[in-house]
Amino acid sequence: MFNQRSALVNIRKLAQDDLSSMDLVIQSRLQGKEQLVQDITCHIINSGGKRLRPILSILSSKLFDYQGSRHINLSAAVEFIHTATLLHDDVVDRSNLRRGRPTANKNWDNKSSILVGDFLFSQSFVLMAEDGEPEVLKILSKAATIIAEGEVKQLSSIANLELTIDNYLQIISAKTAELFAAACQVGAIVANVDQRLRLAMYNFGLNLGIAFQIMDDILDYMAEGVVLGKNIGDDFQEGKVTLPIIIVYGLSDHNERNFWDRVMSCKIQKKEDFNMALDILNKYHIMEQCLDMAKDFTNKAKQYIAMAPDNKIKSALIDVLDFSIERQF
Amino acid sequence: MFNQRSALVNIRKLAQDDLSSMDLVIQSRLQGKEQLVQDITCHIINSGGKRLRPILSILSSKLFDYQGSRHINLSAAVEFIHTATLLHDDVVDRSNLRRGRPTANKNWDNKSSILVGDFLFSQSFVLMAEDGEPEVLKILSKAATIIAEGEVKQLSSIANLELTIDNYLQIISAKTAELFAAACQVGAIVANVDQRLRLAMYNFGLNLGIAFQIMDDILDYMAEGVVLGKNIGDDFQEGKVTLPIIIVYGLSDHNERNFWDRVMSCKIQKKEDFNMALDILNKYHIMEQCLDMAKDFTNKAKQYIAMAPDNKIKSALIDVLDFSIERQF
Repeated sequence: MFNQRSALVNIRKLAQDDLSSMDLVIQSRLQGKEQLVQDITCHIINSGGKRLRPILSILSSKLFDYQGSRHINLSAAVEFIHTATLLHDDVVDRSNLRRGRPTANKNWDNKSSILVGDFLFSQSFVLMAEDGEPEVLKILSKAATIIAEGEVKQLSSIANLELTIDNYLQIISAKTAELFAAACQVGAIVANVDQRLRLAMYNFGLNLGIAFQIMDDILDYMAEGVVLGKNIGDDFQEGKVTLPIIIVYGLSDHNERNFWDRVMSCKIQKKEDFNMALDILNKYHIMEQCLDMAKDFTNKAKQYIAMAPDNKIKSALIDVLDFSIERQF
Repeated sequence: MFNQRSALVNIRKLAQDDLSSMDLVIQSRLQGKEQLVQDITCHIINSGGKRLRPILSILSSKLFDYQGSRHINLSAAVEFIHTATLLHDDVVDRSNLRRGRPTANKNWDNKSSILVGDFLFSQSFVLMAEDGEPEVLKILSKAATIIAEGEVKQLSSIANLELTIDNYLQIISAKTAELFAAACQVGAIVANVDQRLRLAMYNFGLNLGIAFQIMDDILDYMAEGVVLGKNIGDDFQEGKVTLPIIIVYGLSDHNERNFWDRVMSCKIQKKEDFNMALDILNKYHIMEQCLDMAKDFTNKAKQYIAMAPDNKIKSALIDVLDFSIERQF
């Protein structure tokens, strides 16, 4: 079996020097700022995230043998955007745990999370301004609007069991995959490859991001203990309708539909309901179906990355694809 | 006496055609977006704000006889940044009223205000990306980080009666005046004037913004009924230490200090405390002292605007200065 941890270690190793440089950039941008800005940013950035998005920017530039250093600041810009959205998401979702640790809104408060998120978001544009490439700015500012719109769309469709798979894919493309796509495209832009390859990298990232989010939504329904550092059942408790629920609702019988209506739409939940949900999901082999869908997206991503030159970075990016759907964390 | 309303009408008249064009830009950027994004943005943009910041961008470009149209999109970018910060501020301050109407967080909810704020903020950078001028991007992205940092600084110093006037001026320079300054500077940049005039416009806006915020903080302690559409006593209730309180605390006797400690630091407030606060403020003629400080800043601003060519726009911008400290709304 594909070794998840070693794949991630391998990918990180290839990007390690640049990630360290990026960390220095991040540190330097926080230096002298309000203590609260520094504390909250350090808390969230050092909380054991996979740092996939900046890694994607770094590797996408090195894939095309880029020798300069612009990708360092721009991967920091990507990480800042991601961190800002995490801070705001945790307020919006009222989350208390992220990666097994208290969220910033739990450790400090909502106000601080909102304002520090705004600071990081702005700081990412300061980095882009310094870079000075209009195309990078266009792509990342567009990505940021799409992310926010995706979050609003998700908010508007919470507890809506009529959500279609298409709507769901639109939402996760916007709120998650767009930044993966932009991160990859930015790497290709600094490497100055042609438009066809820039677009290929965008589509590689987009399909990877969709698969990644589907897997995230699956992991939220994995039995407790299996998954590391995740807060199982969060989506369920919030009544967030994700792929497993959309598929199972379509297959459920009358009684089961009543159950979903009660727990998701009306959000009337009893202690044993999550186990009941897992039982119904197992009965219809929902996780397998979701995983198949995620695999379809990684396969699409593979077609796009195939257009890049063969080298060890390309192999590592293919490993990222496999990791994204076989991971348990 | 200087007629406040007619000054504002006159200023608006000069900018009216461009403001209308800007409204079309704003509308077009919302078209086809999630209904919630449209509803909340329309609610806040059409809620009777003075639109001073986009007016400043427009007039600062026309002051130097700019004939192009870049200032339209860029004034929309400025308005988007401002609107985003209003949405987030109202969540942070838990405000229920803005300009006499329910705030977005009251009418909808905090989540929606946060996410729509993020959307508008991102959209402002899309507009800057389309404009393509790196200096504009640098100035507005820097302004956005300074605003967020100022808000964090304010949050960290809430209920702190030891706040100095210098700290206070730092906070309001960041959270309010920086965007005034950037709005003016952007106008000068599109008009392509020399560095000296760009800086003069920045400093004009900065000093105007400081005076404007001091006046805002004064108005929060004006007797009810005098001020239109304001929620009197908000700062007091939140324990937000602003200029009137800093000055009065320094002059207060032992008993009065105990009062301020209880109501501001400990936030233990009784119904009659706001009137008590007004009495102490009146006793020491605090409002007059604050107003004198505000006037000092408008006088500084006048020195900067003096460097611009004499024309009717310049006269209108001087009217803005007078309006900013004589307004009661």
